[in-house]
Amino acid sequence: MTTLKKVVLAYSGGLDTSFCLKYLQQQGYEVHTILVNTGGFSTEELAQTEKRAYELGSASHINRDIIDDYYQKAIKYLVFGNVLKNNTYPLSVSAERVFQAIEAVRFAKSINADAIAHGSTGAGNDQIRFDLIFRTIAPQIEIITPIRDLKLSRQQEVEWLEQNGVSYSWQKAQYSINKGIWGTSVGGKETLTSNQPLPEDAFPSPLLNTEPRKVTLHFENGELVGLNGKSDKPSANIIALEEIASAYAIGRDIHVGDTIIGIKGRVGFEAAAPLILIKAHHLLEKHVLTKWQQYWKEQLGNWYGMLFHEGQYLDPVMRNIETFLSDTQKNVNGTVTVTLKPYHFSLDGIESPHDLMNTGFGQYGEMNNAWTAEDAKGFIKITGNAQAIYAQVNKESYD
Amino acid sequence: MTTLKKVVLAYSGGLDTSFCLKYLQQQGYEVHTILVNTGGFSTEELAQTEKRAYELGSASHINRDIIDDYYQKAIKYLVFGNVLKNNTYPLSVSAERVFQAIEAVRFAKSINADAIAHGSTGAGNDQIRFDLIFRTIAPQIEIITPIRDLKLSRQQEVEWLEQNGVSYSWQKAQYSINKGIWGTSVGGKETLTSNQPLPEDAFPSPLLNTEPRKVTLHFENGELVGLNGKSDKPSANIIALEEIASAYAIGRDIHVGDTIIGIKGRVGFEAAAPLILIKAHHLLEKHVLTKWQQYWKEQLGNWYGMLFHEGQYLDPVMRNIETFLSDTQKNVNGTVTVTLKPYHFSLDGIESPHDLMNTGFGQYGEMNNAWTAEDAKGFIKITGNAQAIYAQVNKESYD
Amino acid sequence: MTTLKKVVLAYSGGLDTSFCLKYLQQQGYEVHTILVNTGGFSTEELAQTEKRAYELGSASHINRDIIDDYYQKAIKYLVFGNVLKNNTYPLSVSAERVFQAIEAVRFAKSINADAIAHGSTGAGNDQIRFDLIFRTIAPQIEIITPIRDLKLSRQQEVEWLEQNGVSYSWQKAQYSINKGIWGTSVGGKETLTSNQPLPEDAFPSPLLNTEPRKVTLHFENGELVGLNGKSDKPSANIIALEEIASAYAIGRDIHVGDTIIGIKGRVGFEAAAPLILIKAHHLLEKHVLTKWQQYWKEQLGNWYGMLFHEGQYLDPVMRNIETFLSDTQKNVNGTVTVTLKPYHFSLDGIESPHDLMNTGFGQYGEMNNAWTAEDAKGFIKITGNAQAIYAQVNKESYD
Amino acid sequence: MTTLKKVVLAYSGGLDTSFCLKYLQQQGYEVHTILVNTGGFSTEELAQTEKRAYELGSASHINRDIIDDYYQKAIKYLVFGNVLKNNTYPLSVSAERVFQAIEAVRFAKSINADAIAHGSTGAGNDQIRFDLIFRTIAPQIEIITPIRDLKLSRQQEVEWLEQNGVSYSWQKAQYSINKGIWGTSVGGKETLTSNQPLPEDAFPSPLLNTEPRKVTLHFENGELVGLNGKSDKPSANIIALEEIASAYAIGRDIHVGDTIIGIKGRVGFEAAAPLILIKAHHLLEKHVLTKWQQYWKEQLGNWYGMLFHEGQYLDPVMRNIETFLSDTQKNVNGTVTVTLKPYHFSLDGIESPHDLMNTGFGQYGEMNNAWTAEDAKGFIKITGNAQAIYAQVNKESYD
Repeated sequence: MTTLKKVVLAYSGGLDTSFCLKYLQQQGYEVHTILVNTGGFSTEELAQTEKRAYELGSASHINRDIIDDYYQKAIKYLVFGNVLKNNTYPLSVSAERVFQAIEAVRFAKSINADAIAHGSTGAGNDQIRFDLIFRTIAPQIEIITPIRDLKLSRQQEVEWLEQNGVSYSWQKAQYSINKGIWGTSVGGKETLTSNQPLPEDAFPSPLLNTEPRKVTLHFENGELVGLNGKSDKPSANIIALEEIASAYAIGRDIHVGDTIIGIKGRVGFEAAAPLILIKAHHLLEKHVLTKWQQYWKEQLGNWYGMLFHEGQYLDPVMRNIETFLSDTQKNVNGTVTVTLKPYHFSLDGIESPHDLMNTGFGQYGEMNNAWTAEDAKGFIKITGNAQAIYAQVNKESYD
Repeated sequence: MTTLKKVVLAYSGGLDTSFCLKYLQQQGYEVHTILVNTGGFSTEELAQTEKRAYELGSASHINRDIIDDYYQKAIKYLVFGNVLKNNTYPLSVSAERVFQAIEAVRFAKSINADAIAHGSTGAGNDQIRFDLIFRTIAPQIEIITPIRDLKLSRQQEVEWLEQNGVSYSWQKAQYSINKGIWGTSVGGKETLTSNQPLPEDAFPSPLLNTEPRKVTLHFENGELVGLNGKSDKPSANIIALEEIASAYAIGRDIHVGDTIIGIKGRVGFEAAAPLILIKAHHLLEKHVLTKWQQYWKEQLGNWYGMLFHEGQYLDPVMRNIETFLSDTQKNVNGTVTVTLKPYHFSLDGIESPHDLMNTGFGQYGEMNNAWTAEDAKGFIKITGNAQAIYAQVNKESYD
Repeated sequence: MTTLKKVVLAYSGGLDTSFCLKYLQQQGYEVHTILVNTGGFSTEELAQTEKRAYELGSASHINRDIIDDYYQKAIKYLVFGNVLKNNTYPLSVSAERVFQAIEAVRFAKSINADAIAHGSTGAGNDQIRFDLIFRTIAPQIEIITPIRDLKLSRQQEVEWLEQNGVSYSWQKAQYSINKGIWGTSVGGKETLTSNQPLPEDAFPSPLLNTEPRKVTLHFENGELVGLNGKSDKPSANIIALEEIASAYAIGRDIHVGDTIIGIKGRVGFEAAAPLILIKAHHLLEKHVLTKWQQYWKEQLGNWYGMLFHEGQYLDPVMRNIETFLSDTQKNVNGTVTVTLKPYHFSLDGIESPHDLMNTGFGQYGEMNNAWTAEDAKGFIKITGNAQAIYAQVNKESYD
Repeated sequence: MTTLKKVVLAYSGGLDTSFCLKYLQQQGYEVHTILVNTGGFSTEELAQTEKRAYELGSASHINRDIIDDYYQKAIKYLVFGNVLKNNTYPLSVSAERVFQAIEAVRFAKSINADAIAHGSTGAGNDQIRFDLIFRTIAPQIEIITPIRDLKLSRQQEVEWLEQNGVSYSWQKAQYSINKGIWGTSVGGKETLTSNQPLPEDAFPSPLLNTEPRKVTLHFENGELVGLNGKSDKPSANIIALEEIASAYAIGRDIHVGDTIIGIKGRVGFEAAAPLILIKAHHLLEKHVLTKWQQYWKEQLGNWYGMLFHEGQYLDPVMRNIETFLSDTQKNVNGTVTVTLKPYHFSLDGIESPHDLMNTGFGQYGEMNNAWTAEDAKGFIKITGNAQAIYAQVNKESYD
């Protein structure tokens, strides 16, 4: 008697991975499913997904909560680096895929699986994020990707499932939603165009509050250690901030970017807490870091975000950049006050023992205490030497 | 009989330069005033300022409108480079100072002045912008800076003027306002702190419209050549856009930055048209430029903004960067639709003949036409070689 | 009667492409060969290669000299950018492949070929340079790569050719040599290791002269317009410089780099003229460009070299960078004197009307004319503000 | 009875600081001298300098050897970052000034001095390096700079000293020499021109050996832990390497650079060990680091060198960069073999357990094991998507 080959399937309960679960069994696999929760599933949703997995024939199913690990190894650095892809997108989906892949490998190794499967298409970034992790940390394990291989449309998947006795009401949702602690992505017919915005109701959080409200964010070494005067672990504070801020329908936008496969992609997202946190953190840094610290943090933070987005999380330069970013945070301590309003927020200001403003040296535009008018003239004279020499040697007229 | 020494004073009609005008005469100078309008003065205000200049004893006064020159030599490139200092500030004041200085030199040369004067303090960035230009393009002309040299407070200036027979009602305005086509800066007692926001009424444009409105911006080679279907020169379109958008109280924020003199500075601003224009232009670029074009534009644009802000406009690298930025704009053609709402705006989308999205190659996340699943696997395999080799050689466990 | 499918083969006369020529005929193709000369072939060698092509059955053969085009579109910018990959390698081979590919496409289009073939393996960079050009500028033409597809070793190729009636003495040369105007690459058994240097006789130019000799290089707008007082077109000057300098066995080194396919590669090279020219050009720039011009030229030059090396010549950012580099060269005029010695050279100095040294402003370390001691103190005081504030606020002890 | 004001003088025994020693006494100071040895003084020279200090009236003199501290806090990072200013100069003088300044402050604080003096002119970089350190870490201590203030030429200093009873034979040396463990700088009449090289005998180390010799450098975590099979501390290995290599007259060059004060400066130097060490270290890194690790190390290393050169050592970004650089060195282990020859050297190769070349994945240009021809084609196809889309959308003809 032959034993079936074991495959671990990264499972979310959606159409694509439900198709994979059923299809892989038909292809003769013993399919074990794992749902890796990065903050997008409630306890109830987790229970439902597990139930559905068994209904569809999963040999075993596990739900794994990695929110804290994900915070420690990814979100923390995305905040340190003020990472917004193209100055817009907080990498809501890109970062979590990497950690879902790592967790799937752990599960696969623990049950001696022969293969790992995921439900990505051949036209997106996710296939690359999954495969790169799998090939690097588990090169011996086969990768199986039914949707990519069969090049199926969602309609074809539904039909196949119905022919095979599975009929859920898949098509209710007009928008494909992907939710995690670092934001929710929204895809739909509009995001396949270049010119159409997403309608109001495509976004997950309706506007509930219109009365402006102040929130205070407390930072220690660049991490969000408290909210409105109450301390908690950073991931809990992010979740609490999201709950407050999403009622204002804050943080909606559309990201247009270059995919890893060379085409342009467009995706909507809603990410109130990530955007508020990054902007507040950035403001605090403007007060406590020097000019060149900010310059190099921006350089390395943007690069970190780009490589992360493109699935290159395991390149060792990523660890080097994380070390750099952490090292810059030792004085990023203090409180930032933010006012939430419908659809947007504003930064009121900061308080920090490391604030480099309003020292005894002088007040911008008002009064110089630490230097004289003569000092300023000497400074400007010598600062201007290079361009004055250039102008004189090259007889530039500037007319 | 001795002739008086001639000095040209960069004059705005405000307290500081009024003091200079009177004071310099007392010091034995024949003072000629110039007001360089970068978009902040109405015809009426210009007439009033001229009148006051003569009342205060100006030997001659000229108003010079440089809006178009300023657009061609500065704003155009700030748009091409999507320049927002610290991801926030469109250089509203910094850029115009440079051109006011250049114009003052032209005037000084035309009347054979012995000196040029400006009203900057010794604690700000403006002194550097003025002096650097003067020293580079007119090294033979003396620079005179009464406020900096005497280290006067505004109260002391008022008293001196009163003692010398000049008593305007200077102190009405609680906030010091600086207006130009590229935005209005707002300084006040709050901006001298780190933690206080500016009150609603400190900003020049009250909220007048609350009904959302769509505007369309038409770009050719990166320039705003039309608005809502109507063509005009870019500077006129910016002014028209500002008129529409400022009614929504859009574009208010506070810039916190490192000054050229090493202290931190904080300044409020309102800049509806600049922010909308830059964000719309940037979105269009995301659709028509390649990844590395965007990357290097951002590098050079940010640097350009930094040097510009710091008064280094005449470093020849600035001309090189302008050439680069212009060269990237040949396909930045198309229309961007923006929705204006109270206090904020959103970008709806773009239409462009150069749009690199939705070509026959594939649709992001949906369908790959120009490559197969096998191609994607080969791509990912080889893309992952470097990190797979690294992991194998260094026996990384990733646990 | 069926017509044979036409294929254009990029042909060099070496083993790999000779195999392709014979093999493709056997597969039923009408093979047309093109040798694109980037400076590596003498008139005699060209004639011999053509003769061999016809012996091996070429339907038609053309030799195309593209030295000047290659200079204008590539080498010029590699000089402007002082491009040395990893601070070592002047891209001797990488740059010419791109232009050979472009020329092969031109030939293919001119004879309505159905396909283009090249002799690259699946383990190198050249396959990518060829294919990327072909796929971008002639997507409709099929690409055929027998060596890559059959995964043949050189020994297997020799045997197959012998079995098919072709027996040249291929294996004489222990080292695979690739020559062009921009240098000669040298591969051999040592370059497949990490620890062995190439032996003296692996390099093409033996040491002939040991008596030091001065040469003068004349630059206009960054281009080498003359040598030792004699004007000629830049490509001719490069060839003349190479002839003089290679007699000193100058310019030998080994490049170790990251290939496009993720593995590390090591290749020897000899490039006397390129190295002398780049170093001389760079020295002249140190005298005539400002600090930030040099900084950004280095950034963009290095990136240009990297993309070029990796076959991304057709990314439009390359054209933008070329425009930038050209714009920086307007003052790069003057003469550089170089002393050639056995195996190395030294730069004696420069003369230029745009030299920014030794102006009236001051002499480094000796005498300040344009500023006083007090100016210097004011300059330093304000320059130090930021770090003094940081030290004071954060109570840094530095012990 | 009044007590004299105490001043600490950074003293080297040369003309400038001897003038200061005598002059400051005449001005009524009690002068305490400190010689900070960064590797340029032998035991005998130290004794002589001390003797002269007392002859010239020093109230107390100390010699302080900081070679190890200097290595740990500066040279180590200059090696990690492969720092060569303008791709040429190993910062021989710039780095040591900072540490001499720090040591002078320590001495001043230990004896409660009222002031610190140094002998720099107003036309060089050294005044800035000294003053910036003094003002940041000891803002309460006065800075005295007689040479800068009096704007004296060397001839005037000699005459003054003679008039005051001091007549050493100062003018023997035609070249001003500054020696430390990280190289020797050489200034002379030629370096004040743009076109003259330094003569052979201006350099400190004559050519003694002409017979090529191999040396092996052993690295652990990027540090030189052994030489020719013998372990010692890195600073000792550098001194030993210098002794061997300087006999070949290796490492001579002229640095042309932008000074902090905006003029161009030119200085000769000889630095055999620094250049060999940096090039060997860099080669090892090419084998053990990934592409992007090398890229960002170069970015940050160059910036570190620039800020260091410009005296900004205390900017906290410098500490952040040091942390980054250290983090990249964990696999920089192995042996590099170098061949020394008259006036130059060549790198033979490396051996390292972390070598990323010659793994099972494939051999560059020869054989691909970890991927197939089909994988390579898929890789190239998708790699080319972006530029193929660009070409198609924009109908680029490339003719």
